[in-house]
Amino acid sequence: MSLLSIGTIAYDDVFTPYGEVRMIEAGSCTYIAMAATHFAQPVQLVSIIGGDYNQAFLEDLKKRGADLEGVEVVPDGKSFFWAGRYHDDMMGRDTLETQLNVLADFNPTLPASYRNTDYVMLGNLSPQVQMQVIDQMESKPKLIALDTMNFWMDIAMEELKAVLKRIDVLVINDEEARQLSGELSLLKAAAKIVDMGPRILIIKKGEHGALLFDGDKVFSAPALLLPTVVDPTGAGDTFAGGLMGYLAATDDTSFENLKRAIIYGSAMASFVVEDFGTRRMQNLDKAQIDARIQQFVDLIEVKF
Amino acid sequence: MSLLSIGTIAYDDVFTPYGEVRMIEAGSCTYIAMAATHFAQPVQLVSIIGGDYNQAFLEDLKKRGADLEGVEVVPDGKSFFWAGRYHDDMMGRDTLETQLNVLADFNPTLPASYRNTDYVMLGNLSPQVQMQVIDQMESKPKLIALDTMNFWMDIAMEELKAVLKRIDVLVINDEEARQLSGELSLLKAAAKIVDMGPRILIIKKGEHGALLFDGDKVFSAPALLLPTVVDPTGAGDTFAGGLMGYLAATDDTSFENLKRAIIYGSAMASFVVEDFGTRRMQNLDKAQIDARIQQFVDLIEVKF
Repeated sequence: MSLLSIGTIAYDDVFTPYGEVRMIEAGSCTYIAMAATHFAQPVQLVSIIGGDYNQAFLEDLKKRGADLEGVEVVPDGKSFFWAGRYHDDMMGRDTLETQLNVLADFNPTLPASYRNTDYVMLGNLSPQVQMQVIDQMESKPKLIALDTMNFWMDIAMEELKAVLKRIDVLVINDEEARQLSGELSLLKAAAKIVDMGPRILIIKKGEHGALLFDGDKVFSAPALLLPTVVDPTGAGDTFAGGLMGYLAATDDTSFENLKRAIIYGSAMASFVVEDFGTRRMQNLDKAQIDARIQQFVDLIEVKF
Repeated sequence: MSLLSIGTIAYDDVFTPYGEVRMIEAGSCTYIAMAATHFAQPVQLVSIIGGDYNQAFLEDLKKRGADLEGVEVVPDGKSFFWAGRYHDDMMGRDTLETQLNVLADFNPTLPASYRNTDYVMLGNLSPQVQMQVIDQMESKPKLIALDTMNFWMDIAMEELKAVLKRIDVLVINDEEARQLSGELSLLKAAAKIVDMGPRILIIKKGEHGALLFDGDKVFSAPALLLPTVVDPTGAGDTFAGGLMGYLAATDDTSFENLKRAIIYGSAMASFVVEDFGTRRMQNLDKAQIDARIQQFVDLIEVKF
């Protein structure tokens, strides 16, 4: 099965205690595609870039199974740019600069070949843009997942609530779940959020793993303990890409398969942070992914 | 198998957003005993109380399988007293008052019947008192576990390091593990702490579960999502009591059984926070414990 994904295709400057990189290829759509193409092909991208974007990088994305028909190119525009510096604890980070550039006027138009895709990943963009994509689907997708962030809760809560009614899976972190629901307890937060629309809620807890809520069923996924995190940028997008790529590839949205998909997403995220940007994803192979899945299985296995 | 446990037998005043209790029976040794006696009997207690302690409560402890021969009674002394108020998020708390009372001059002498016990739980007391107990064991126990806190790291680090060389299992929370090791990464912290002496390290992460390190093997135990936490006091001691009670009862210190023991400890801790003090532990039965163990199993079960 194919997967449709929206998000940014960006350049980042990233500073961490382990080093720095400048004008590296990044963005939510990029990370989602780099992870999802390991499972599902094609991954139909919906994004916008300037004429300044690295052509060789885009060609490589295509070779991996990404479909770039839905990526609008503004020849004399500049691509979205973000610069950030991580704190020594690698948890917090400061944004040093954000240049929306071509993203400021992004009004996606889906190619005809995208409009009947069954699996849709709405990466972190404005709720208005996310809604535009849903509105252009001709047949109802089997599963629409959405990522968002506190920024949109601060400035576009009503628009976000409108789009939440149209999706199946919400993927957010614990802090965002608390902000969205106004509840400290994640159990209470989950109940409130599910009432807002999404049938399935996935709460990412960083180094503490993730929680899956589906009806009255809950799954607690662990996180691997990583010796070194070089660059956390894109971990959430890579998680979403692995998750939705696996779901699209297996075409199975049962609770049991959602659990497996979360482990796949977690495994992909555990790779991406090992190096800057998407570097680690570029030389990743199936054997490495399978071995890491086994590490997750071993980490939580207990017999009674 | 029997279990030996040291710690405080105290009175607490506790204030939480859910209410308040005064002069409630509490203390690390009490919580450990209330949990451990569900599995192992006798649980040989080593502590000190004043003549003011509730005799009916002590009699009930005995009926549950606690051996109180090692509990020194100072007839005209007052029992250890602690008062604390939890913040609205139930995470942080402020100590309102601490009266050491009889605990100020505690120099435990083990009864002869305690000196060959195979499983020893050194609850949170000064490292000097913990060491005194180890020194009085006639035969080397199969497993000595130790709980401590940042307070002792601040004022008695050298004494703590000396006792760490004599124990098998260290049970601390993530913040304490970081303070003890000087490492942010729990993986690096674990490696450093194991070098200090304990073969096995258990890091409690509160609502995020617990980690078990045993050689190069790691187990990530989940935490249940609780609808309501009424009083978090004693959760760590109850975890330790369930853990060591289960290990003593099964007399098996393999990695596989340590994993089960952590789930039992987590289950007992998930009960104790449902009500103030030890109230919830008093009417707990095996069927309830078994049902909760199954909840933990269901929470992490995933098949590939």
